[in-house]
Amino acid sequence: MSDVLKQAVPQEEYSDRLRRVRVAMAARDFGALVVTDPANLFYLTGYDAWSFYTPQCLVIPADAEPHLFARAMDAAGATFTCNLRAEQIHGYPEDLVQRPDVHPFDWIAAAARELIPGDADVGIEGDSHFFSARAYLALAAGLPGHRLIDSAELVNWVRLVKSPHELGQLRIAGRIAEQAMRIALDQLRPGRRQCDLVAEILAAQAIGTPEHGGDYPAIVPMLPTGEAAGTPHLTWTDRPFRTGEATTIELAGAFGRYHAPLARTVMLGDPPQRLTETAKVVAEGMQAALGAIRPGVSGGAVHAAFNAVIAAHGLVKESRIGYSIGIGYPPDWGERTVSLRPGETTVLTAGMAFHVILGMWMDGWGYELSEPVVVTPAGVERLTDLPQELTIRR
Amino acid sequence: MSDVLKQAVPQEEYSDRLRRVRVAMAARDFGALVVTDPANLFYLTGYDAWSFYTPQCLVIPADAEPHLFARAMDAAGATFTCNLRAEQIHGYPEDLVQRPDVHPFDWIAAAARELIPGDADVGIEGDSHFFSARAYLALAAGLPGHRLIDSAELVNWVRLVKSPHELGQLRIAGRIAEQAMRIALDQLRPGRRQCDLVAEILAAQAIGTPEHGGDYPAIVPMLPTGEAAGTPHLTWTDRPFRTGEATTIELAGAFGRYHAPLARTVMLGDPPQRLTETAKVVAEGMQAALGAIRPGVSGGAVHAAFNAVIAAHGLVKESRIGYSIGIGYPPDWGERTVSLRPGETTVLTAGMAFHVILGMWMDGWGYELSEPVVVTPAGVERLTDLPQELTIRR
Repeated sequence: MSDVLKQAVPQEEYSDRLRRVRVAMAARDFGALVVTDPANLFYLTGYDAWSFYTPQCLVIPADAEPHLFARAMDAAGATFTCNLRAEQIHGYPEDLVQRPDVHPFDWIAAAARELIPGDADVGIEGDSHFFSARAYLALAAGLPGHRLIDSAELVNWVRLVKSPHELGQLRIAGRIAEQAMRIALDQLRPGRRQCDLVAEILAAQAIGTPEHGGDYPAIVPMLPTGEAAGTPHLTWTDRPFRTGEATTIELAGAFGRYHAPLARTVMLGDPPQRLTETAKVVAEGMQAALGAIRPGVSGGAVHAAFNAVIAAHGLVKESRIGYSIGIGYPPDWGERTVSLRPGETTVLTAGMAFHVILGMWMDGWGYELSEPVVVTPAGVERLTDLPQELTIRR
Repeated sequence: MSDVLKQAVPQEEYSDRLRRVRVAMAARDFGALVVTDPANLFYLTGYDAWSFYTPQCLVIPADAEPHLFARAMDAAGATFTCNLRAEQIHGYPEDLVQRPDVHPFDWIAAAARELIPGDADVGIEGDSHFFSARAYLALAAGLPGHRLIDSAELVNWVRLVKSPHELGQLRIAGRIAEQAMRIALDQLRPGRRQCDLVAEILAAQAIGTPEHGGDYPAIVPMLPTGEAAGTPHLTWTDRPFRTGEATTIELAGAFGRYHAPLARTVMLGDPPQRLTETAKVVAEGMQAALGAIRPGVSGGAVHAAFNAVIAAHGLVKESRIGYSIGIGYPPDWGERTVSLRPGETTVLTAGMAFHVILGMWMDGWGYELSEPVVVTPAGVERLTDLPQELTIRR
């Protein structure tokens, strides 16, 4: 069985995670919490499979053991990757899958009813990617007498400060990210198709290091090129790279579901002056942002430190310059908790991890530079080690 | 602009797709439909980006032009990949992203209100993966006086029968799947780490063919090995393959977001008799299933044809043996409409496409064989061409 486990989390650490979730539940007076985010399931139980496209959840009663509910064929596999006993794992019948008339959460609600005390409030994960409107309505209908209350990312917030084990996973992910980016920066050439470069990046992400094979990142490599570089989130095509064009590359290294994302920009040929200048300003801004990160500082203050630098050069960035990272599943490697942006009052503490991403998306061109980092007692630790500059290939 | 378009769908085809959606809307008396499934957005507008981790939707009024709503930084990029005019694309402010107190769908509801006639019913996609409970509740609160009605995969059903253009995309996806599977079957060797084999599969998927670069599949390669082969949906580890173990491999070729999934099983060393026999029975069952597929036959009848064959050998499979395929985004390459299973009354017609997947997940071992196919006027067309047998490597 241990053969298929991706990581060995000490049982005491699982217990501690659950204990901290229960403390947060008690503060909200939840009689139970229904966890649907795959990253939260993994954090609390180690359950890891590509099964989140059908409904699944962990029901955590305030005063009893948690129970996992999944499609029958996946419940069977759950024993391979999760720390629950067989009695805590329940498979719903196959004929409930993807039907318009019935929903797996009808069955889950009926089965979970006896786990939930009296008329207790039940916390749900309102913005979990795979907790659909129909799932929510079925759960609500199946739990009459209970109020469903949005937990507001309760478990995600518990994940915010990483344990030594988790920091170790992040450092390995960082090495994988650095290696994949080195290959990307080295192999991007005029005339090569975007998809062929992506093939090398994907291979490097999976191979990882000789000691630690790579896991799948929550997001595929993104490399908007030419005028598309002015917009984020475009995936690749089979068009060849051309001299005179810049490409922004965003990718991640992943290990045991932990992510270290990383972004750089490559120019084929002589860069236009605006790109050279932006790269210089952004590098200075990165120093300011990383220099501001330390325990006791707010997320908003980090954003302000960056903006003060670029404002001096006539630039402005309204969107956030970073977000908390850790465990990730498609479609996102962010934790959906702390953002580095104006108004973010959360104070940084040692053990938090962030993707500091400076994306300057202009009209028809763009520049990206990012660093995955950990907050340390003394300041900041970078998870990768690559020059913070525009790569120019002539 | 055309540089970054992944495919050139004729404008008349987009018009026809929208027209058929409107016919289905009229049958349900919807005054508007809110489309959130990324595959449906792509089908109706060509919009394609990894932006679905934040809220986005297409609002289709019954009698007016559709409008796309996305995060501001993605709305800017939408012009690169979608067929809407700039006036039809609306970006919500960055400071609404991932906050507990406000939600992008508050803003979207307010902006969409004037597009929706009087007290009309509004269709929503209740089980769309990225339409969260919180999004649903925000939309409902922002559209007082309107009933939100689950559309029951309305657009997905419109996608069921493929156009000649779409069949062309699927055939290319099939060639990519076949090529990736050939590499997987050839390169799986004792002592190699699972992640290193996956690296070759991922590279083959991205490279595609010299004429057609591969797109990213909605699901990563899955290859449960050894006793884990008794369960589906486990992703890879860095453990080496070992002689004496079987591995089931499920992967897809993807082109322009169209998917051809494919599964095979590899045995390292001499197969146990139960595996050899199961492979033989399943191959016979596949012939029966493919032989049953033709216009006029129900999805349930295809399942019955398969089960009749395996029942004669003392085997039984309760779960579905296939589902409709076409456009896919993470986390699923299925269309969530027709399943090949008992009770499926939908009658097959030419132009439908299916992944016929025969997964026998036993206690501690398993066997998988699948074919992506298209229903033709005369019967069935396979999208790949590989032997339907257990691969044995000694």
